[in-house]
Amino acid sequence: MKYSKIPVARSVVALCVAKNIKHVVISPGSRNAPLTIGFTHHDDITAYSIVDERCAAFFALGIAQQKRTPVALVCTSGSALLNYYPAIAEAFYSDIPLVVISADRPIERIDIGDGQTIRQKNVFENHILYSANLYSELVLEHQSEDAKLQQKQFEARKHNEREINLALNKAIEEKGPVHINVPFYEPLYDTVEHIEVDPLQILPEVNEKHYTEAQLNSYVQEWNSAKRKMVIVGVAQPNLIEQQFLDMLAKDPSVIVFTETTSNIHHPDFFTRIDTLVGPIEKEENKEELFKKLQPDILLTFGGMIVSKKIKNFLRNYNPKHHWHVDSKKAYNTFFCLNKHFETDVNGFFRSFMPLTKTIVSDYGNFWKDIKKNRQHRHEEYMSEIPYSDLKAMQLIVPEVPDHSIVHFANSSTIRYAQLFEWDRSLNTFCNRGTSGIDGSTSTSVGAAVASDKPVLFITGDLSFFYDSNALWNDHIPSNYRIILLNNSGGGIFRILPGNKDSENFDTYFETTHELQAKPVCELYGFNYSKAANEQEIEHELNTFFDAFEKPKLLEIFTPRKMNDKVLLEYFSFMKS
Amino acid sequence: MKYSKIPVARSVVALCVAKNIKHVVISPGSRNAPLTIGFTHHDDITAYSIVDERCAAFFALGIAQQKRTPVALVCTSGSALLNYYPAIAEAFYSDIPLVVISADRPIERIDIGDGQTIRQKNVFENHILYSANLYSELVLEHQSEDAKLQQKQFEARKHNEREINLALNKAIEEKGPVHINVPFYEPLYDTVEHIEVDPLQILPEVNEKHYTEAQLNSYVQEWNSAKRKMVIVGVAQPNLIEQQFLDMLAKDPSVIVFTETTSNIHHPDFFTRIDTLVGPIEKEENKEELFKKLQPDILLTFGGMIVSKKIKNFLRNYNPKHHWHVDSKKAYNTFFCLNKHFETDVNGFFRSFMPLTKTIVSDYGNFWKDIKKNRQHRHEEYMSEIPYSDLKAMQLIVPEVPDHSIVHFANSSTIRYAQLFEWDRSLNTFCNRGTSGIDGSTSTSVGAAVASDKPVLFITGDLSFFYDSNALWNDHIPSNYRIILLNNSGGGIFRILPGNKDSENFDTYFETTHELQAKPVCELYGFNYSKAANEQEIEHELNTFFDAFEKPKLLEIFTPRKMNDKVLLEYFSFMKS
Repeated sequence: MKYSKIPVARSVVALCVAKNIKHVVISPGSRNAPLTIGFTHHDDITAYSIVDERCAAFFALGIAQQKRTPVALVCTSGSALLNYYPAIAEAFYSDIPLVVISADRPIERIDIGDGQTIRQKNVFENHILYSANLYSELVLEHQSEDAKLQQKQFEARKHNEREINLALNKAIEEKGPVHINVPFYEPLYDTVEHIEVDPLQILPEVNEKHYTEAQLNSYVQEWNSAKRKMVIVGVAQPNLIEQQFLDMLAKDPSVIVFTETTSNIHHPDFFTRIDTLVGPIEKEENKEELFKKLQPDILLTFGGMIVSKKIKNFLRNYNPKHHWHVDSKKAYNTFFCLNKHFETDVNGFFRSFMPLTKTIVSDYGNFWKDIKKNRQHRHEEYMSEIPYSDLKAMQLIVPEVPDHSIVHFANSSTIRYAQLFEWDRSLNTFCNRGTSGIDGSTSTSVGAAVASDKPVLFITGDLSFFYDSNALWNDHIPSNYRIILLNNSGGGIFRILPGNKDSENFDTYFETTHELQAKPVCELYGFNYSKAANEQEIEHELNTFFDAFEKPKLLEIFTPRKMNDKVLLEYFSFMKS
Repeated sequence: MKYSKIPVARSVVALCVAKNIKHVVISPGSRNAPLTIGFTHHDDITAYSIVDERCAAFFALGIAQQKRTPVALVCTSGSALLNYYPAIAEAFYSDIPLVVISADRPIERIDIGDGQTIRQKNVFENHILYSANLYSELVLEHQSEDAKLQQKQFEARKHNEREINLALNKAIEEKGPVHINVPFYEPLYDTVEHIEVDPLQILPEVNEKHYTEAQLNSYVQEWNSAKRKMVIVGVAQPNLIEQQFLDMLAKDPSVIVFTETTSNIHHPDFFTRIDTLVGPIEKEENKEELFKKLQPDILLTFGGMIVSKKIKNFLRNYNPKHHWHVDSKKAYNTFFCLNKHFETDVNGFFRSFMPLTKTIVSDYGNFWKDIKKNRQHRHEEYMSEIPYSDLKAMQLIVPEVPDHSIVHFANSSTIRYAQLFEWDRSLNTFCNRGTSGIDGSTSTSVGAAVASDKPVLFITGDLSFFYDSNALWNDHIPSNYRIILLNNSGGGIFRILPGNKDSENFDTYFETTHELQAKPVCELYGFNYSKAANEQEIEHELNTFFDAFEKPKLLEIFTPRKMNDKVLLEYFSFMKS
């Protein structure tokens, strides 16, 4: 192996390896050479070279999301680092471990006019779990005999080792982004053959509360006497919850469970498509009566962000008496009535809690299950009638996705359309809902494709796709990676929102219409390209789209932009009972 | 005209217009609708719609750099804002006024799980001149009779108006980036016909010191007795300094003036190509003697960042006794010997200072002017001998650039090659040297093309170009905009730096080789494409490249990547006397 002559660079590599970091995404630079040399020559590290740091960070996020362990990012000094910020914010809110390692110039070179030099210390302050600001280590040509200098070097090294440990531990313990800033003196390219450092090791610790029966008692009593209990699962990793607990919840007639496309939880009795249940109520004449019937006494939530705006609006207007959230890290007061955060993992909670509960007689579950069945019929009826549109295209895609794939959805129309359909339970589904940005969906899905043996399908809209087209500037994309691009020539989501449509001002500044097509992008980055512009063409293309092929593929589906919002908005009116 | 019903949105628009902001770059979103509506319907505002916020911000930077007045950026809430950061850092270090206006959700919606919601308050803390964090104003449906509520609303509004004023004034006074964060309650799309607000107006103030003869006296004495005075001009706007002062400096035999390609200052007696003077000395046997001869007693600097690493290294090793910097805003201790910051504009300084000075007998100027002449001969000799390479291509480009153009250079090889040549004095030249990033050079040059009547030529390398290819996703690019892309299949700069070349590891993680070509990018964005791969083809293509055409053009010049570093490194050896 081969390492930098600079000891702190070796300490960073040694501690990353010791803490089981396996994947390192590197963007080119010179100041980061000591880190690049160490990581790329290490047998335990898989390194990736990505030029655009914005893509690099989302790509790392996609790997970390699949592997569920920290992935490291390495970049040079200056604005390079700032390009990581969108992905860092996404990781911060989505609880995905990312270790950002930035090379820097020594402190006396900041703000004196040197190139590629900014104020990197604590630069992500608002959205980072830990910022380790290391000291730069001078590599002296002759071993100094000066005891004071030796002591100073020793203290700096020990400070650095502790800070690196604390940062890495934080990423592991709390599953989020951390930043290690490493200033280097020149020369940057000198190497040694052996790692020669044996840094301080501080083990990570996972703090998780365990609740005793006594502590749970008053909550159990509330649960056992409540006739209307709603469970909502936000964004969640596949297999988050043991099946036995899902079965228990499903069996209880006083419980209804709402899941989303991004929940990765499946049970035939659950309500998988929240908007199709709640949306049409808004259109009913007796909507207040219905909403009151739906209003739960207890709302139990787990998982991350909730996509459905409709359920958020409903619960903010019809507050449950209790909102309890289960998560070992954090609890958001999403509905302004959170009164309990169970600081533990979901299975642990259920393991303690469920044996203490009993079912209660209630018509809550059955009433809404009947409505759910009705909605399903209406959905099918509507789908059979609608003209060619985004909604229609999505309907055609859903059954064609190969089982056991990973499906990544872009923001924001795409994931909203996806939420209206039932996806096969063998699929693993993801979407960047931490910040709900369009800035890195493609890169994240590419990361997933590289990290997983499963085939990855990325479904996206046009603004998201062209925004992050640099995602495809990546030598690691496997040939089973697929993109379906719904190109409606603009930001379709804006047509669905209120506002004065079909003016030139609206087209330009809200919908942001364009005439871009993905074919040249595919040519640039070596993707197979095909397209479709009506139902027959979609069906035809999907026949072979998922077949094994020598390179990754993109299918561009053109839809009529002025039709899409009408079809979607009428859907909810049609769906009411 | 048409404005948002939300008063704070109208106050923002009214104050931007009052302070003479004319250009607003908007990225699509819903939360920012109140701002978008107000700006896009206002007769005094030219609005631009750019989807990728990273490009939008550099595009705005390019406009502001040409117009020398603040340009506003408007985006929605969430990670959109973070994509501005690379350009904000560039503006911060390059002293270019940018007004970032971000829509936000009200404070009680932060960190509760709402979509597109992050911690926007002070998010650019490390690199911003002012952060105005506004209060959200509730628009009540019925005029409230409650005096307390009215008073509260009044105070919030007055706080907001003052903060908006202070932020805008800071951008004007200190020429840099400021951030105004504006939280909005829904509904976001309601409008009114008249602006109906008459916000508080605080006038900007420009603080500039004026130095009296008494204050200047000791510096004048030093100047008048110093036999070796070096003047270095960093990045500077065209016409920064009156010609009379340049003539005075040129005439003084004890003064040598170093300018760079980005200095935009011209005089036949100045040293325009620092590296060609200093670089070869490093190769001379008597280099210490020569450097001591070059070492100035007084170093006088003005302008921004200095590109040449060689002059920085030289002056750090051969410190002048005095380093004085003239700038009304800031002075960097670039050479670790700054002992005077004249806080005034350059012409004002010269106007007070020069009449007090007298020339002194010295052979300093003539000695180096002789060497300069010699270097010029050697340069021409070398150029006539070298094989086809980046350096050769640049030589062919220089004389073909139409007079009175604007030339934008990308980082980092491109600007370094450019520094070795003499560019016509009618040209205005620019490069993002604030942070020296490759992340937005193209977008900045597009901004310049939109802001100026002059034709813009952008000369770039391949990594910079593909990194910022979204820059061309822009409906405003004029047909006289030109790009010359030097495609050497990787980051050529890394071949010039030390390090173990020609290993697979080097190719992948340092040089970052690739096989991308720009043709599909041109197809995607409607550019005319042509290419050249040898001297004859370059000459042939350049014959017509600058002719008027119906759309913007890109010329891709392919050079052999393994030849370039050799040709450049041998240049400095060849150049020695």
